[in-house]
Amino acid sequence: MALINFDYISANPLLPEVQEAMIQAIRANYGNPSSPHQLGDQAAEALEKSRGQVACLINAPNPKEIVFTSGGTESINQAVKGVALAGIKKGNHIVTSNIEHNAVLRTLRRLRMMDFKVSSVEVDPDGRINPDDVAKAITDQTVLVTIMHSNNEIGTLQPIEEIARITRAKKVPFHCDAVTSVGVVPMDVQKLGVDLLSFSANQFYGPSGLGALYIRQGTVLWPLLDGGVQENNKRAGTENLIGIIGMGTAAELAVQEMDARLKHCLALKRKVIQGLKEKIEDIYINGHPEFSLPNLVSVSIKYIEGEGIVLMLDEEGILVSTRSACAAGALQASHVLLAIGREFADAQGTLVITFGQEISDGDMDRLLEVLPTVVQTLREMSPLYKKKT
Amino acid sequence: MALINFDYISANPLLPEVQEAMIQAIRANYGNPSSPHQLGDQAAEALEKSRGQVACLINAPNPKEIVFTSGGTESINQAVKGVALAGIKKGNHIVTSNIEHNAVLRTLRRLRMMDFKVSSVEVDPDGRINPDDVAKAITDQTVLVTIMHSNNEIGTLQPIEEIARITRAKKVPFHCDAVTSVGVVPMDVQKLGVDLLSFSANQFYGPSGLGALYIRQGTVLWPLLDGGVQENNKRAGTENLIGIIGMGTAAELAVQEMDARLKHCLALKRKVIQGLKEKIEDIYINGHPEFSLPNLVSVSIKYIEGEGIVLMLDEEGILVSTRSACAAGALQASHVLLAIGREFADAQGTLVITFGQEISDGDMDRLLEVLPTVVQTLREMSPLYKKKT
Repeated sequence: MALINFDYISANPLLPEVQEAMIQAIRANYGNPSSPHQLGDQAAEALEKSRGQVACLINAPNPKEIVFTSGGTESINQAVKGVALAGIKKGNHIVTSNIEHNAVLRTLRRLRMMDFKVSSVEVDPDGRINPDDVAKAITDQTVLVTIMHSNNEIGTLQPIEEIARITRAKKVPFHCDAVTSVGVVPMDVQKLGVDLLSFSANQFYGPSGLGALYIRQGTVLWPLLDGGVQENNKRAGTENLIGIIGMGTAAELAVQEMDARLKHCLALKRKVIQGLKEKIEDIYINGHPEFSLPNLVSVSIKYIEGEGIVLMLDEEGILVSTRSACAAGALQASHVLLAIGREFADAQGTLVITFGQEISDGDMDRLLEVLPTVVQTLREMSPLYKKKT
Repeated sequence: MALINFDYISANPLLPEVQEAMIQAIRANYGNPSSPHQLGDQAAEALEKSRGQVACLINAPNPKEIVFTSGGTESINQAVKGVALAGIKKGNHIVTSNIEHNAVLRTLRRLRMMDFKVSSVEVDPDGRINPDDVAKAITDQTVLVTIMHSNNEIGTLQPIEEIARITRAKKVPFHCDAVTSVGVVPMDVQKLGVDLLSFSANQFYGPSGLGALYIRQGTVLWPLLDGGVQENNKRAGTENLIGIIGMGTAAELAVQEMDARLKHCLALKRKVIQGLKEKIEDIYINGHPEFSLPNLVSVSIKYIEGEGIVLMLDEEGILVSTRSACAAGALQASHVLLAIGREFADAQGTLVITFGQEISDGDMDRLLEVLPTVVQTLREMSPLYKKKT
């Protein structure tokens, strides 16, 4: 049975061009970009080519502002811990939101153990932050604001430009977790005005375990990885050059194909939302109706558990997720869904449907054919549903 | 011109079997090991297979004691910062040696900025630590001892078992940077008695930008990367599964071929040391004559600069290094060579010759033919040499 993957957010497939670039890199057997001889020079050239491609994807004015990392999580840890620890003499206060990814939340929890204080701005029922709330939360002790670009569970996009205007006026460094946005929606760090931007290669069909951090020139932070002088002295350690070449190729393709990809995803998104509303009663579509990712639909299906739906769809060869894979091992209800006002039970009945290039209109038809049956089967076994009817 | 690579320590070539395993992993388009569906299950299975292969390489009793990282530098930062910060309530003192890699030294420098104190044990002229010195350096404030297994510039192996006996008696966690040892010499963490062991895939023909940290069960440390629940909650972030599969394959081969590889390298090492001594006057072979890496020869050549030798050999298609690639951008004299008593000028005239599977006896003949001529040419231009003669 061919699988249909509606869990792109957990793992994008590698595009054929990305696969080819990585395979060529493996066969090329590159040296160490830091070595002062021919093999080193070739490797350094490949590294810097990728850096340029990635800089272009987010319109960074200088490729040196790009630091390659081992993924979104490292980028976020580097940005948040790095800026906080470097700023400790100025203050110990950080502003964030209550719907951030665990990579931000748990990093902040760690910093709290080191005497940092964190203010968490709330979101409205669509998952949007009010920039005024960020302005009010900033004190003269604030050393960092960290707000995500888009939410990985409900897709809501935040008013990052407006928030950046505030942080710049108040001279507070602003980190933006853009892991689920970069390569998915157009991104321009110059227009956004953020000081640091975290992102990950796999969200735009590059390899997993590879990411980057944009660090605006002049931003002060401690390296998370101390050691050698790689990455312009901002991140020690011999580079994962094979992965970096894959990321560079994926970045270049994302720039070229951005418009077509957006069009493809938006059509699928419209279709699935309409189909779900028509075919299943008692559901909520989560997230902002307009300011939202094109490749993600979050739906809370009342009276049943998301885990059950995932298992039954899996048997039909259809892969969906209840939330981000990173949190799959954790059993608590989603803090994001609770933050937008979903009840605990409804949060537990939530599916995150994500899609991309390899998903066709016919695949979406198949989801819309199978899911209502699965929901009906599960509801018929649900005491909550029986009480309702 | 075919290149002859005597700079294995900067970049091992990928073995054909490792290349094939990684290419298959790219084509397999694995999902996310944390996803609760078929694609996730397949990925998780591949991940755990590699973990078992890597555990076997160092004889870790439980594969869960292996955490995959983005390389030796991350492993070291994770071990040292993680144990130190988790131990801050007990004390703020760390014991190390004065010939550690920059990944350790600069990590410790960072911890000093957070009020940790560091005692640095000296080495003898062969680069060996006296375990008694470690015992004397430990105080009731000591939260970590970190000593390397082998030195990356001179190859000297340390008496790790003896040091571990001391740290265990004193109940102080012991981290061992074994980046240049694991996969090169037999390694058994149960026999060694260390609590944490850092290593890197590329030192045994696996991919760059990938490593692992052995964490003995019960060792308390803070994660360097906070976020998702990957790696048994010890290291957040979606895994670089393609690289991990390469590392697993490389680890299995290293176990199988260990004896043959040792024999091959030791023959080359004997040959090059003898050849250098016969053909070039006024040299020192650095490091311990017996307790030393089989794949590394460090030679200080008086009156000339190592950089000049590297450039001239490069023109002949022979690649060597003056020291680790990580430090290539730094211009100071090697702290390791100064620590074993070399004078500044001799430290600057040092080559690190490293080799492995693809280096033949004939390649070594070529080095021993070209290098003396290069040395003579450079010496004839050297004012230091003229003064001597």
